[in-house]
Amino acid sequence: MQGPNLNILGRRRPEVYGHTTMKQINDMVRARAEELSCELLIFQSNQEGVLVDYIHRYMGECDGVLINPGALTHYGLSLREALEAVEAPVVEVHLSNIHAREEWRRTSVISPVTLGQVVGFGPRGYVAALDLLLSYIAEQRPAGNG
Amino acid sequence: MQGPNLNILGRRRPEVYGHTTMKQINDMVRARAEELSCELLIFQSNQEGVLVDYIHRYMGECDGVLINPGALTHYGLSLREALEAVEAPVVEVHLSNIHAREEWRRTSVISPVTLGQVVGFGPRGYVAALDLLLSYIAEQRPAGNG
Amino acid sequence: MQGPNLNILGRRRPEVYGHTTMKQINDMVRARAEELSCELLIFQSNQEGVLVDYIHRYMGECDGVLINPGALTHYGLSLREALEAVEAPVVEVHLSNIHAREEWRRTSVISPVTLGQVVGFGPRGYVAALDLLLSYIAEQRPAGNG
Amino acid sequence: MQGPNLNILGRRRPEVYGHTTMKQINDMVRARAEELSCELLIFQSNQEGVLVDYIHRYMGECDGVLINPGALTHYGLSLREALEAVEAPVVEVHLSNIHAREEWRRTSVISPVTLGQVVGFGPRGYVAALDLLLSYIAEQRPAGNG
Amino acid sequence: MQGPNLNILGRRRPEVYGHTTMKQINDMVRARAEELSCELLIFQSNQEGVLVDYIHRYMGECDGVLINPGALTHYGLSLREALEAVEAPVVEVHLSNIHAREEWRRTSVISPVTLGQVVGFGPRGYVAALDLLLSYIAEQRPAGNG
Amino acid sequence: MQGPNLNILGRRRPEVYGHTTMKQINDMVRARAEELSCELLIFQSNQEGVLVDYIHRYMGECDGVLINPGALTHYGLSLREALEAVEAPVVEVHLSNIHAREEWRRTSVISPVTLGQVVGFGPRGYVAALDLLLSYIAEQRPAGNG
Amino acid sequence: MQGPNLNILGRRRPEVYGHTTMKQINDMVRARAEELSCELLIFQSNQEGVLVDYIHRYMGECDGVLINPGALTHYGLSLREALEAVEAPVVEVHLSNIHAREEWRRTSVISPVTLGQVVGFGPRGYVAALDLLLSYIAEQRPAGNG
Amino acid sequence: MQGPNLNILGRRRPEVYGHTTMKQINDMVRARAEELSCELLIFQSNQEGVLVDYIHRYMGECDGVLINPGALTHYGLSLREALEAVEAPVVEVHLSNIHAREEWRRTSVISPVTLGQVVGFGPRGYVAALDLLLSYIAEQRPAGNG
Amino acid sequence: MQGPNLNILGRRRPEVYGHTTMKQINDMVRARAEELSCELLIFQSNQEGVLVDYIHRYMGECDGVLINPGALTHYGLSLREALEAVEAPVVEVHLSNIHAREEWRRTSVISPVTLGQVVGFGPRGYVAALDLLLSYIAEQRPAGNG
Amino acid sequence: MQGPNLNILGRRRPEVYGHTTMKQINDMVRARAEELSCELLIFQSNQEGVLVDYIHRYMGECDGVLINPGALTHYGLSLREALEAVEAPVVEVHLSNIHAREEWRRTSVISPVTLGQVVGFGPRGYVAALDLLLSYIAEQRPAGNG
Amino acid sequence: MQGPNLNILGRRRPEVYGHTTMKQINDMVRARAEELSCELLIFQSNQEGVLVDYIHRYMGECDGVLINPGALTHYGLSLREALEAVEAPVVEVHLSNIHAREEWRRTSVISPVTLGQVVGFGPRGYVAALDLLLSYIAEQRPAGNG
Amino acid sequence: MQGPNLNILGRRRPEVYGHTTMKQINDMVRARAEELSCELLIFQSNQEGVLVDYIHRYMGECDGVLINPGALTHYGLSLREALEAVEAPVVEVHLSNIHAREEWRRTSVISPVTLGQVVGFGPRGYVAALDLLLSYIAEQRPAGNG
Repeated sequence: MQGPNLNILGRRRPEVYGHTTMKQINDMVRARAEELSCELLIFQSNQEGVLVDYIHRYMGECDGVLINPGALTHYGLSLREALEAVEAPVVEVHLSNIHAREEWRRTSVISPVTLGQVVGFGPRGYVAALDLLLSYIAEQRPAGNG
Repeated sequence: MQGPNLNILGRRRPEVYGHTTMKQINDMVRARAEELSCELLIFQSNQEGVLVDYIHRYMGECDGVLINPGALTHYGLSLREALEAVEAPVVEVHLSNIHAREEWRRTSVISPVTLGQVVGFGPRGYVAALDLLLSYIAEQRPAGNG
Repeated sequence: MQGPNLNILGRRRPEVYGHTTMKQINDMVRARAEELSCELLIFQSNQEGVLVDYIHRYMGECDGVLINPGALTHYGLSLREALEAVEAPVVEVHLSNIHAREEWRRTSVISPVTLGQVVGFGPRGYVAALDLLLSYIAEQRPAGNG
Repeated sequence: MQGPNLNILGRRRPEVYGHTTMKQINDMVRARAEELSCELLIFQSNQEGVLVDYIHRYMGECDGVLINPGALTHYGLSLREALEAVEAPVVEVHLSNIHAREEWRRTSVISPVTLGQVVGFGPRGYVAALDLLLSYIAEQRPAGNG
Repeated sequence: MQGPNLNILGRRRPEVYGHTTMKQINDMVRARAEELSCELLIFQSNQEGVLVDYIHRYMGECDGVLINPGALTHYGLSLREALEAVEAPVVEVHLSNIHAREEWRRTSVISPVTLGQVVGFGPRGYVAALDLLLSYIAEQRPAGNG
Repeated sequence: MQGPNLNILGRRRPEVYGHTTMKQINDMVRARAEELSCELLIFQSNQEGVLVDYIHRYMGECDGVLINPGALTHYGLSLREALEAVEAPVVEVHLSNIHAREEWRRTSVISPVTLGQVVGFGPRGYVAALDLLLSYIAEQRPAGNG
Repeated sequence: MQGPNLNILGRRRPEVYGHTTMKQINDMVRARAEELSCELLIFQSNQEGVLVDYIHRYMGECDGVLINPGALTHYGLSLREALEAVEAPVVEVHLSNIHAREEWRRTSVISPVTLGQVVGFGPRGYVAALDLLLSYIAEQRPAGNG
Repeated sequence: MQGPNLNILGRRRPEVYGHTTMKQINDMVRARAEELSCELLIFQSNQEGVLVDYIHRYMGECDGVLINPGALTHYGLSLREALEAVEAPVVEVHLSNIHAREEWRRTSVISPVTLGQVVGFGPRGYVAALDLLLSYIAEQRPAGNG
Repeated sequence: MQGPNLNILGRRRPEVYGHTTMKQINDMVRARAEELSCELLIFQSNQEGVLVDYIHRYMGECDGVLINPGALTHYGLSLREALEAVEAPVVEVHLSNIHAREEWRRTSVISPVTLGQVVGFGPRGYVAALDLLLSYIAEQRPAGNG
Repeated sequence: MQGPNLNILGRRRPEVYGHTTMKQINDMVRARAEELSCELLIFQSNQEGVLVDYIHRYMGECDGVLINPGALTHYGLSLREALEAVEAPVVEVHLSNIHAREEWRRTSVISPVTLGQVVGFGPRGYVAALDLLLSYIAEQRPAGNG
Repeated sequence: MQGPNLNILGRRRPEVYGHTTMKQINDMVRARAEELSCELLIFQSNQEGVLVDYIHRYMGECDGVLINPGALTHYGLSLREALEAVEAPVVEVHLSNIHAREEWRRTSVISPVTLGQVVGFGPRGYVAALDLLLSYIAEQRPAGNG
Repeated sequence: MQGPNLNILGRRRPEVYGHTTMKQINDMVRARAEELSCELLIFQSNQEGVLVDYIHRYMGECDGVLINPGALTHYGLSLREALEAVEAPVVEVHLSNIHAREEWRRTSVISPVTLGQVVGFGPRGYVAALDLLLSYIAEQRPAGNG
């Protein structure tokens, strides 16, 4: 899942976020998911509530969530509660190192309800996050299901 | 009115919010409204702006608002301004005792523009809140109109 | 139970607290308790320690506590610990909407040890709080005892 | 009125509060009141609630209150509300200059509900405060009553 | 662009915001734009994400943005990032003097990414803001393009 | 009125404040005042007290004040009280966008006593501020005086 | 001594500061000083530095200082240091009850270097402060000098 | 001395405070005092003012104070001043480790006026505190008195 | 265990810490341990990491830890984590009453992971702490092991 | 590099940090490094200064740093400056999700000088971090060097 | 340059500032300047604005500024901006160690725009500061000018 | 004495700290010490505890300490206590102007226990600091010892 303003990636402040577009990132993540035979749904919205609706729709059916919440990271408490309700592991990704930028970017309301974060590695961080999420899910699953 | 994530009630963290669904709560409130011959509109959205739109639509036509703002309680300043603009009494309801949970849940940006709050009584709190709201409205109304 | 300064209700800042006296509120609550065949003890003191003594006297014998702690809401930590020790549900009532007044009135040291709060509905809030408390108690009690 | 620990004045940390006892201060104030033909009731308690009770007893009958709230200055919100309810002018006195001591002594929860304060002048401050209070009362009183 | 609750202007708390409606303000701004031969798109939404979508749609095609973000001023970080991404000058307008109202209204998350603000002049402030924005754009543009 | 350090404009940190001198700004404002047949007094001082004296001298005789308080914006409480005492509308101007610079520049002790602010538009902001001030004054004045 | 804006007393916000002018207050204080055979110098300035200069001029020659620092109360650290250097008792006076107004008025940087304060009693507070100051000086002075 | 709610020890939240009653603790302390031939007065009250009265009564006659101030630890400034006035060593005891519980329990207004604290050792901490207090007193006393 | 600067005890600021040397304290504690037939290892280091190494070396082999962390009390988070990992009871000792000194000394990062603290009793506090620790250990140990 | 207390991994609070030992993690990382033909130096110390020394020794010779700073994350400013001086990319790893634990664990003084962080994925996070670091280094290196 | 209250040096709180007068310090600095063949202008004012005026007068003509801003250190933002505008190196001197006194003295608004500070060395600090300033200027100057 | 990371001076962020190495600075200081016939011991460590050990070793034998604590400036409380215990004057040096960099660099835990600071003058600041320290020592020493 991609939060607000990620749809314009590549055009938006490339000195911070790089030149890769969201489509290219999505393709990288989708390719990786195919390699690992995992089914992946990709969704972006600039509206917090629409992200929440989407999470509800797949609640109970998905095994994990990979999300870059964009600026909602810092105030999206409704998104937080939706992710908390999913009861599947959530991994938070950020393209830039949010700890080396403005002070307000250092506080995430999302992090406390996630399994972990991958921060500051650009598009490659999404792939690493997917790998980490899938490994975690595989490990939790009872052996007989594998 | 029901704020973000209330649509998944019953499935979401039942150890905190209980097993009653939003539909069941809505039915309880509707039943009570019928008993008291009061006309009731029920609405839920996960989007702050959609809640604001809804409030605007009925501005000047409704005599009171009963709202559980969900996580918007803590940052929904647009919702606050819409409720303030209604100029009808607003009652805020919370299922759980928000003062016995995380620190950030203790601050409500909505409370200062409401008539009052009913907090921590689960679904039953909605019915009590409706009663209190209707009593208040009845009392404000000039006797000849009754 | 009624905290400090509630004994002068009706004479004290009626533009905030209304013209109803504490005796009238007590009568309303007592009437409601009789309707519901519930035994009710009413007590007021301007001294925190006397309220604490009173709570201790009935500890283990009462099924619930209805309290408006007055200004002790904001600093009465001894009262808080006494209420916490009761191990029966506590409901906190406030006549005025404490969230629409001075900043310091927004923090309650009592709320975290209560079941819930009914805030801002004037004398009627006491009756609603009693109803909510009794319903809660009834629900907790094993069916065979009813 | 005299708050907590003022009864032991003269014996308590004389390097800060001087050697004058509370009785001597009371006598000075009483003498001054007699000179000005004003009726004066003097009361001391170490218990906030007892001070509140006393204020309630004379509510509506007294024309003004002269108080040194002792340590209650910094947390006695029940006392504050009792004084606010009196609806007569209140003057706050402190023997020592509370602004030249520990940081926590600089905040008074009582000051916002008083007419004014006389701070740092030892026992003499009580007499000055009485004079200022009486002048204020005289001035407010309609001429015909004088 | 107009943020949340501006659509009900004229009906909403007229003692603060005046009796002019949003339509009247839009007409004033449109008239002024026509006088200055400038093309103007007007948009209002109560949803932050919809405002963000709208900004993205015209990114790279518009020469400047005039915005009253309503309550999003104080928490709309997604809107902030969208405006920052535009890379055209942004001017922030407020009808009322937000610095003479509640404390929380004094902090704007939008201001740091704008060219400047026009605050407190009612509807007339929009026209002044448009003039200032157009002058700025004219000045930045290389002479030969005029 | 111009506050501290504005007399050296054009020579002082031109990367922030531009190359226009205070004299040039004053001329722009004076020209605009003449166009609008309004009498204008221009004054600059690096001393807060001298600005206060000047305000007192014309108290009751002027219809409005246009001021860039320079660094006094952030601590000039005497200036604030003088402007508050004028009881004529005050407009605050800043050349640079003070909200996009150091944190301490974001708090203005002057803003709460002004009609509004024009911030970040360089010298042109003064002219816009004059226009807005004059429009406001014209509107307040009873029609017959026009 | 009188701080900034006190010269316009009587014309400035009379609902807060009353209708008495500074000249009238000065006359009241001077009359009292004459009654008590004490030599009094009266000085007002809107400039902190000029007040500091004045204090230096009479350092070592005066037995006490009576001052209403106006808005310098809250930030005039140079004035504070000048008063501290005097090594004679300083009494601070405020016309209004600064503790019942805006939050920032509750902190005085001057109070820690004074003997005491008389706050909230209007012009009469000056006379009381003079009396208290003179009594204090009389008491400190070795008996033989009297 | 025992502060508020210590009288119900053993019945109150035994998972935190253990099953020992206050009477049992008092007996342990009394037994130890007898062993050491020291005269001991034991007192409990839920009222701060009553504790203050008690301290005043024995001021100048006691050689030391052993106190568990209960919740007054965190706001009992009147108790603090009474203990400070005693001018005998005071030892503060807490049954539970207050530093490993809620944040507000970490600040004691009493500690700065004590000799030391014994925190977190349950009933045994009282005996250790008595020993430490008596050793300290013995050491301070001039040899000839031993 | 003894933290930084305790090795120079007796020579370091004796007006605060007394004239007893660390060796003397160690001897007192060792003597007491021998009386109680308990094996005791004594260690001091000025380096946080060396203290951590030492704790690791005896992890799982020791039944309890007695520590005066010196200045590491206030920032030694590595030491805290080492003590937390020990999973044996830890007792914190301070020679002086850290709550009656500078503000920063009042916060201990170590206390939340300890069983309890003995603060302000000088060298004697070590012996009391040892007794309390040993009693606690004895009580936890299953009877058959005694 | 491994910071304080990581040497006892597997034995230390396994409910938080798991049962994997540091040796096992080091082996996993070393294996991965061998697969990728990258030379790897592994180092652990409980002493901040020793970690700093180690960093200095390889300054200019290493292409990147992988570090789990343990508790130094929150106060190790010397370590931060050493890492900043390296001028090679640094990746920060944490086994547990530090954002879902105590408040003080949410602030890292190390993060602002790193390339990015991998947080909450247990031992597997180290391998992901190594991959991300190596990819970053490969990308920065001019093609001809590959 | 010398800020407020430095003119009374030697007479003002000599236990803090010593017995040397400002004239003596000026003579020491002048003597040193003569030794080093540097032209020196000395100026003192108790008025911030007059210091600002003086700085403006010599802007562009002086090679460096040596200043003890007195109490303006802590709030003189106009002085700060004047010094920043000079674009010559500024050295800040304080006679006493401002970091070992009251908390508010630890924050300097001037330091961020200076080259450096010499703090706590009494009059001798001025001479050291002059030497350091002149060395710095000499080093910056192109060799050919020497 | 030189704190953490100063050993790599010249190689570390030369745009901030310059190109001079620690050895060159040490040589400058040693040369100056020889000129002044003063015995000088030079020591650097990246470990706080090792610096503390070193200070202890020479306690009572040295007449003064010259220290650049590096990053320990901001959290090295053990170092602070060691320096405080020395009871010889301590001078703190910083190469860069720590007040013109990140906010956290502005607070020094070391400054309150020093004689003074020399900040922002690069290597030359060490020599000035040595001179100031030696002058201070010479002045304190009774004449006959010279």
